[in-house]
Amino acid sequence: MEEKSNGPKEDGNRRTNNNTVIPGPTNPMVTPLLSDLYQFTMAYAYWKAGKHNERAVFDLYFRKNPFGGEYTIFAGLEECIRLIANFKFTAEEIAFIRSSLPKTCEDGFYDYLRGVDCSDVKVYAVPEGSVAFPKVPLMRVEGPIAVVQLVETPFLNLINYASLVATNSARHRFVAGKSKVLLEFGLRRAQGPDGGIGASKYSYMGGFDATSNVEAGRLFGIPIKGTHSHAFVSSFMSLDEIMEKSLQSRDGSSTCEDFVSLVQTWLSKIKWSHLIQGIFGETNESELAAFISYALAFPNDFLALVDTYDVMRSGIPNFCAVALALNDLGYKALGIRLDSGDLAYLSCETRKFFRTIEKEFGVPDFGKMGITASNDLNEETLDALNKQGHEVDAFGIGTYLVTCYAQAALGCVFKLVEINNQPRIKLSEDVSKVSIPCKKRCYRLYGKEGYPLVDIMTGENEPPPKVAERILCRHPFSESKRAYVVPQRVEELLKCFWPGSSDGAREELPSLKEIRDRCIQQLEQMRPDHMRRLNPTPYKVSVSAKLYDFIHFLWLNEAPVGELQ
Amino acid sequence: MEEKSNGPKEDGNRRTNNNTVIPGPTNPMVTPLLSDLYQFTMAYAYWKAGKHNERAVFDLYFRKNPFGGEYTIFAGLEECIRLIANFKFTAEEIAFIRSSLPKTCEDGFYDYLRGVDCSDVKVYAVPEGSVAFPKVPLMRVEGPIAVVQLVETPFLNLINYASLVATNSARHRFVAGKSKVLLEFGLRRAQGPDGGIGASKYSYMGGFDATSNVEAGRLFGIPIKGTHSHAFVSSFMSLDEIMEKSLQSRDGSSTCEDFVSLVQTWLSKIKWSHLIQGIFGETNESELAAFISYALAFPNDFLALVDTYDVMRSGIPNFCAVALALNDLGYKALGIRLDSGDLAYLSCETRKFFRTIEKEFGVPDFGKMGITASNDLNEETLDALNKQGHEVDAFGIGTYLVTCYAQAALGCVFKLVEINNQPRIKLSEDVSKVSIPCKKRCYRLYGKEGYPLVDIMTGENEPPPKVAERILCRHPFSESKRAYVVPQRVEELLKCFWPGSSDGAREELPSLKEIRDRCIQQLEQMRPDHMRRLNPTPYKVSVSAKLYDFIHFLWLNEAPVGELQ
Repeated sequence: MEEKSNGPKEDGNRRTNNNTVIPGPTNPMVTPLLSDLYQFTMAYAYWKAGKHNERAVFDLYFRKNPFGGEYTIFAGLEECIRLIANFKFTAEEIAFIRSSLPKTCEDGFYDYLRGVDCSDVKVYAVPEGSVAFPKVPLMRVEGPIAVVQLVETPFLNLINYASLVATNSARHRFVAGKSKVLLEFGLRRAQGPDGGIGASKYSYMGGFDATSNVEAGRLFGIPIKGTHSHAFVSSFMSLDEIMEKSLQSRDGSSTCEDFVSLVQTWLSKIKWSHLIQGIFGETNESELAAFISYALAFPNDFLALVDTYDVMRSGIPNFCAVALALNDLGYKALGIRLDSGDLAYLSCETRKFFRTIEKEFGVPDFGKMGITASNDLNEETLDALNKQGHEVDAFGIGTYLVTCYAQAALGCVFKLVEINNQPRIKLSEDVSKVSIPCKKRCYRLYGKEGYPLVDIMTGENEPPPKVAERILCRHPFSESKRAYVVPQRVEELLKCFWPGSSDGAREELPSLKEIRDRCIQQLEQMRPDHMRRLNPTPYKVSVSAKLYDFIHFLWLNEAPVGELQ
Repeated sequence: MEEKSNGPKEDGNRRTNNNTVIPGPTNPMVTPLLSDLYQFTMAYAYWKAGKHNERAVFDLYFRKNPFGGEYTIFAGLEECIRLIANFKFTAEEIAFIRSSLPKTCEDGFYDYLRGVDCSDVKVYAVPEGSVAFPKVPLMRVEGPIAVVQLVETPFLNLINYASLVATNSARHRFVAGKSKVLLEFGLRRAQGPDGGIGASKYSYMGGFDATSNVEAGRLFGIPIKGTHSHAFVSSFMSLDEIMEKSLQSRDGSSTCEDFVSLVQTWLSKIKWSHLIQGIFGETNESELAAFISYALAFPNDFLALVDTYDVMRSGIPNFCAVALALNDLGYKALGIRLDSGDLAYLSCETRKFFRTIEKEFGVPDFGKMGITASNDLNEETLDALNKQGHEVDAFGIGTYLVTCYAQAALGCVFKLVEINNQPRIKLSEDVSKVSIPCKKRCYRLYGKEGYPLVDIMTGENEPPPKVAERILCRHPFSESKRAYVVPQRVEELLKCFWPGSSDGAREELPSLKEIRDRCIQQLEQMRPDHMRRLNPTPYKVSVSAKLYDFIHFLWLNEAPVGELQ
């Protein structure tokens, strides 16, 4: 890995305020047509019934935390705001919709679509990067029903994967611990091009340090890392291939005319040193040639992949010979990467070897040389490595992180909770799928020790919970589950990110780095038992007594009475 | 679902020949920067060593079929060709790469990058939509090593998910059977925007009939489908909301002034018909209002979601009343959609109800009314429905299809097999990860009954297998596994899709529809035991005797000899 990090070149996360233009979505394929056809057939039916401008309120929320955990990171908000800030149909798009709907649809509808934008839509949301819980709205979207439904599919698409991968990232960080460097390496295995770009962005948000994805570095200013692959190693055949053998010392004071010989001398010294003797025989020469070539190209950034042939019998001795030769010229090698085998065992053996070199040849800090590990890592393998004991400093994680292999989808839904000031409920045979009606306000209540205790949803016009005042928090569907809480701090969760008119006040969109900081800080303030990997304690989500009563009144009202026969 | 299908509006799959311009990748984010940083650090190291133009051959292949199956559909080729046909760094991209590499990197490298394109690269590939097997190259990419490595990451990204989702689609089609309509409904749960668009494209390729994704319909000409959601139903409160109640008959000969009353009359007739009496009481009025509104908007395309309140006590009777009223005016309703509950049971009960209506009111074919089912369907639930017995005509499949929930990634790799005409091998402790060296040719050998028997890889210059001539096929790594085959037909698998010069002959890129037809035809010609869902027979993949011997010679040559201590 080069120790380079890149400031944002093109700021993909421009600050926005009511006077600035919000750019469109990062992926130009995110347009008003990135939607399900039924949003358009419904829009037509609403329009035909004269109902399209009825004021509707929808909640976007998920029902269950992913990965068997008890928390979720909310992500994807900025892309949603970018979409609605630029939501407008082109003539070509309208022509396509016309060709996709029955010929009987009236022309007036397409005139209506031509004028549609989101100036009459309001979006309240939890700030991006927040820790979030099931059933509590992540977003509340209000506006003319036809328009709000048109944004349903793209909003869900933009939130579901973003939140899933940010959560996955946070969980990997939790297991790896704060001190390790975490690198996202998943582009090649991601679900499509912006599966890869999204993974890089939201992994960084959830606590990763860097990515291998160059385009994500360019778009979002995420630090990018990378050195070489096995192909680089096997592309070399012998030392004779190295034509230009000279290397200037780091301070420019001298030049080593034959760096290859210097390395060979070191390799021989290592081989015959009394602490190492007999551990390895002949190392692979093509590998040595590759390492020397890489070091000549990047003398300040020498990091070698050591498992192309045999880690302990070839890769490590070859690496050390090059690193010691570099050291003679004032350069400090960065370390090695392991990409196969028993990473716990190999990292410990490698560390021992490095310490032996430090001792034998008196090279300060050689024993602290960086060890990066990759190869199908995930939460479980990180946990197993921790339990076994290892000497890895940095982990490169790909497939399992970016495809969220352990659970490939988050089930956010978008439900109508009010229309024309009338609360609506969606029933289901499955209680967990019954929606919580009404335009709501949501609060997080904090306890004495500073931990969040419970989230509570209330009707829009109920008085907010007050600090030091006892409030009854009820489970939305389970009659017996309720508790009094005396909050030490009350935080309103939903903030206005899109006021629907140019003179309304709205939250600014923070930078990716700010969102990442918020995420890390929010994760740190959670009570530890909610966060543990196995059998975490569920965080409580509740409704006010008044909302509880109203939900159950409406439920009885809408459900048909059964007849057992 | 509207019974509408859309021809390609903008052909995302233009035919190409050597004289036409190949457009860029569908997703404009697919650029030469959509790559891992190490491709650039390696390119620099190659350049610095004067090695960047050495002629390399890489194989792109996977090691294991996904989903516990024994076959894979190859997809994503066209996007790869679109990328390399337009592969060129912009000044801004080069500036970004410069800012990402160490300052010590020499200027000459960026001059070199400025001139890089793929005119000297050749791509041989299995045609898109082919059935493919582990270890046999899907693509062979030849060219200057630095350039070929620059395309590694985007190629893997474009192939891995495409092939995975096409395979998933084919597997769902296999379980559902040929006669069912399969609809892709996954956009909202997909891994990002082009996770959704890619899913629509490659699901269609693998055998689905249509998608809900409007943008995918526009880009690729895939039929799009959709009607309404639960929100549409619950947005209505009562029949009083319906202002415009008239509906002209289908042939225009008359107008029903009060369609609402006509529906109500039918509802009452159904309720009190002696065959139905007592099955339901009062149906939900807001649901009835929603159905009537939808029918007034789409009298030729009436398909209703019937599970918002209660399928058998409200949704089905409400639907039938509207469908019968439409029938009076000459319209034929399309059917219903079930999105929750026991789909086997509900579809059978619904069918019974429809047949009763047909009988009771003498409406021909009412019993054959379409039944669509959705709600977290996958291979297993389709299989379970088949075993239980069901009356579903069309399945809408989302999350499990598009995120490939059962296995979220395919592990295609890109391995150096030759450089400067020297074969290269990548070793591994794990035999399944050892690469097959040499620039190879690959053949599929067919038996007497027309089924493919075995794929065989040979060295480039070996004589090809001949029809009716016995050939020894050897397992690449297992000494004892070998068989003589007398092929009745021999098909060369790798064809030239990018000749690397404007005068070379290349395969034309077929349309998506042609690729889909090829895929379906290839799946049909496989021996059934390779295709079954549980415990399928592995299809054999082999090497020639000569290649076998060479692999093992090279392996022994490169591997260090161990010493047990």
